[in-house]
Amino acid sequence: MMSMKTSKTAVVQHVLTMEEWNVRQIHELLTRANEFADMKRERTTLPLYAANLFFEPSTRTKLSFEAAEQNLGLGILHFDAATSSVKKGESLYDTVRTLESIGADVVVIRHEQERYFDELRDFINIPIINGGDGCGHHPTQSFLDLMTIQQEFGRFAGVKVVIAGDIRHSRVARSNVEVLERLGAKVYVSGPKEWMDEAMSSRFIPMDEAVEVADVMMMLRIQHERHTVQLIAGPNDYHEAYGLTVERTQRMKDKSIIMHPAPINRGVEIADELVEGSRSRIFKQMTNGVYVRMAVLDHVLRQAKGGDWK
Amino acid sequence: MMSMKTSKTAVVQHVLTMEEWNVRQIHELLTRANEFADMKRERTTLPLYAANLFFEPSTRTKLSFEAAEQNLGLGILHFDAATSSVKKGESLYDTVRTLESIGADVVVIRHEQERYFDELRDFINIPIINGGDGCGHHPTQSFLDLMTIQQEFGRFAGVKVVIAGDIRHSRVARSNVEVLERLGAKVYVSGPKEWMDEAMSSRFIPMDEAVEVADVMMMLRIQHERHTVQLIAGPNDYHEAYGLTVERTQRMKDKSIIMHPAPINRGVEIADELVEGSRSRIFKQMTNGVYVRMAVLDHVLRQAKGGDWK
Amino acid sequence: MMSMKTSKTAVVQHVLTMEEWNVRQIHELLTRANEFADMKRERTTLPLYAANLFFEPSTRTKLSFEAAEQNLGLGILHFDAATSSVKKGESLYDTVRTLESIGADVVVIRHEQERYFDELRDFINIPIINGGDGCGHHPTQSFLDLMTIQQEFGRFAGVKVVIAGDIRHSRVARSNVEVLERLGAKVYVSGPKEWMDEAMSSRFIPMDEAVEVADVMMMLRIQHERHTVQLIAGPNDYHEAYGLTVERTQRMKDKSIIMHPAPINRGVEIADELVEGSRSRIFKQMTNGVYVRMAVLDHVLRQAKGGDWK
Repeated sequence: MMSMKTSKTAVVQHVLTMEEWNVRQIHELLTRANEFADMKRERTTLPLYAANLFFEPSTRTKLSFEAAEQNLGLGILHFDAATSSVKKGESLYDTVRTLESIGADVVVIRHEQERYFDELRDFINIPIINGGDGCGHHPTQSFLDLMTIQQEFGRFAGVKVVIAGDIRHSRVARSNVEVLERLGAKVYVSGPKEWMDEAMSSRFIPMDEAVEVADVMMMLRIQHERHTVQLIAGPNDYHEAYGLTVERTQRMKDKSIIMHPAPINRGVEIADELVEGSRSRIFKQMTNGVYVRMAVLDHVLRQAKGGDWK
Repeated sequence: MMSMKTSKTAVVQHVLTMEEWNVRQIHELLTRANEFADMKRERTTLPLYAANLFFEPSTRTKLSFEAAEQNLGLGILHFDAATSSVKKGESLYDTVRTLESIGADVVVIRHEQERYFDELRDFINIPIINGGDGCGHHPTQSFLDLMTIQQEFGRFAGVKVVIAGDIRHSRVARSNVEVLERLGAKVYVSGPKEWMDEAMSSRFIPMDEAVEVADVMMMLRIQHERHTVQLIAGPNDYHEAYGLTVERTQRMKDKSIIMHPAPINRGVEIADELVEGSRSRIFKQMTNGVYVRMAVLDHVLRQAKGGDWK
Repeated sequence: MMSMKTSKTAVVQHVLTMEEWNVRQIHELLTRANEFADMKRERTTLPLYAANLFFEPSTRTKLSFEAAEQNLGLGILHFDAATSSVKKGESLYDTVRTLESIGADVVVIRHEQERYFDELRDFINIPIINGGDGCGHHPTQSFLDLMTIQQEFGRFAGVKVVIAGDIRHSRVARSNVEVLERLGAKVYVSGPKEWMDEAMSSRFIPMDEAVEVADVMMMLRIQHERHTVQLIAGPNDYHEAYGLTVERTQRMKDKSIIMHPAPINRGVEIADELVEGSRSRIFKQMTNGVYVRMAVLDHVLRQAKGGDWK
């Protein structure tokens, strides 16, 4: 049943997908994130609140937003989907309107339904930050990937990025392909043929070539919980055939790096000993995640409250 | 098993039921809530803590208290009933005494057992605020209803309020009847005959008349999770027979308003398009909920800590 | 599968077991806890974060740490094991490294696996405080027990402590025996013979003698959830045979006290009316728990950040 809603009263800027950000805006966001990385924290003294609505399990994203919010001095309204009125059948829209009425100034949502935000974006008067919609979009993950690459190479133009794993089922991966190419990077995809996308076939490169070409090996997580991987043999076989093995990394270029969004299946998509090796930027990505989320919160609050919102 | 407890050492004022508040006290509380609405926040610099014990799902009430507590500058001790020692069989009394010992200055409790507070009130040395006891009392919900009516009409005397829905199983409804009449309002009840109370029969009015008489249509939520509604036909039939339909609202008086405690079953007790219509004060009620909870917290902390507690 | 990890870069002091604390260090910690008890709070203005990882139900310990952390002005990163990526199979090590990357300055962990910390201690660069490892260690519980005894008697030398209950399955009990004897106390154990330890047999004393000898009756909780107590008869029989009955306490010495780590099975290991009687220090223990946790946090942050960390 579609619900009747009131259109929002003013132009509110949400952060929902990377497609909605142009190149200039992306660079501005990354500049702000790097400023936060340098000085780290800048707390508002205003009584402003962020509401975090997480309908799916998430360690990294939820805690990263909580750290970013506290770094900015925002109060947090903790919404626990497991004990909420959603159990009483309340719609997502009514839940968000409730948070708005209670005093949330910004809301972060992670929800298993792809594009859950389409039914919200024109009706909610506070900024929505998408913390992940099912297999769909995850803009703050993309931003932290971009920040990490930019930190390493100082540019995107000409940087060769191999995204390896389940491309077909990962819209985040496809979204990264799109934005990296817009920024000037050369993007390849790798992994089992069954997991490749028709539209991506021109970008395909086998793993053994990939490691020699790549400046960045961006490994994807095998998402056991989202789809069966019965097509593929056991974890060891997968690792040998398509994973980042120690042997393969020995053929990587001197300055090449390894990225992974985590949580990691050690020994499957990436060899155990590489996770914290010298090429790995995996934990650096997590640290950057806090800074890009601070920058995203800062961005939407500037729009909503005025440039001097703090 | 009854437990032996130590009587509390001083007079502590709890907020448990509306029956315990006289007319003067109610007006004072509403005045304070309106002051908070105007200036919104006034934070203590003292290290004071509120512990929130929610044994039942609740979005609105829990988040509303958390917002109110943070608005006042209180620290929060988050008690998650699902992962607590209550699982090890600890009594509610021992749990609350524990929170008191750990440093809570006030405790908010929502519990499925009606009058759970009777075994606590004479023994706990910090103020207890009842956040709802089963089908029993919910004083902060009553206060926010009163605040919303007073904002609209500037008075209670002579205001005609129709409470519509499951009167029999809602002590909150019956509690609202009692307090509204004490404050001078004229109260009617409406809904299916099976859901009416013997004692309420003199106040009964059919829905089609109700909409023409009411200044306030106070709709109750059909609580699917609390009792079966097999007596009643399907949701559409219920809506036609007893719900607030678009057609019925067209016969409402010019300045009449619609209220609902939420969460809402859109299309059952109230038509979807009315929820955010011009007559609706439903989301306003939620905003007022934060202010009355600030006023209630302020009230009990004044009693416990002295008038200048902040 | 063992994971490859990077050794930590600096000497980080964790708080994992009492065995690692010498007598001088213990006294220093207790002195600091008593200072916190006197002035109660001293908040940092730095943006520092404590991450709390609780994989097991716990009211007291979790809330006590949260109160201690807020008293010191630390921000809190709430890690909810039930909704975390641990569900996606992430290792404890990777989870803690994630929290470190996100900005946690100290991490408190409670985990059902005994000595879970052995796989972390040499690799994690922020202090780990053990909030309990299965039936293993629980150093902050030991510290609060020691603080409570010291407050009462001003010393440990010669104080006669009877620990009564399931000694065999409680490493915390055995750990308390060890540390109390190191501090000069005379320790006895009591309870059902089936629950005694070979190594403890020289310390055994029957309950009826125990109450006459003890300065401190330290009752253990019957942990229904950890092991079956089928060996033992019903709760009433247990109470009569091995519990602290009202009759038995009448034979206790004038200044003797009763302790219990809680949650309490009223009427089983201790008579209901004794829980809040004049000899009981049970709720005092909980209050002290906040102070020792403040002292432990202060201790590790001094090591990690320098003596003037605030």
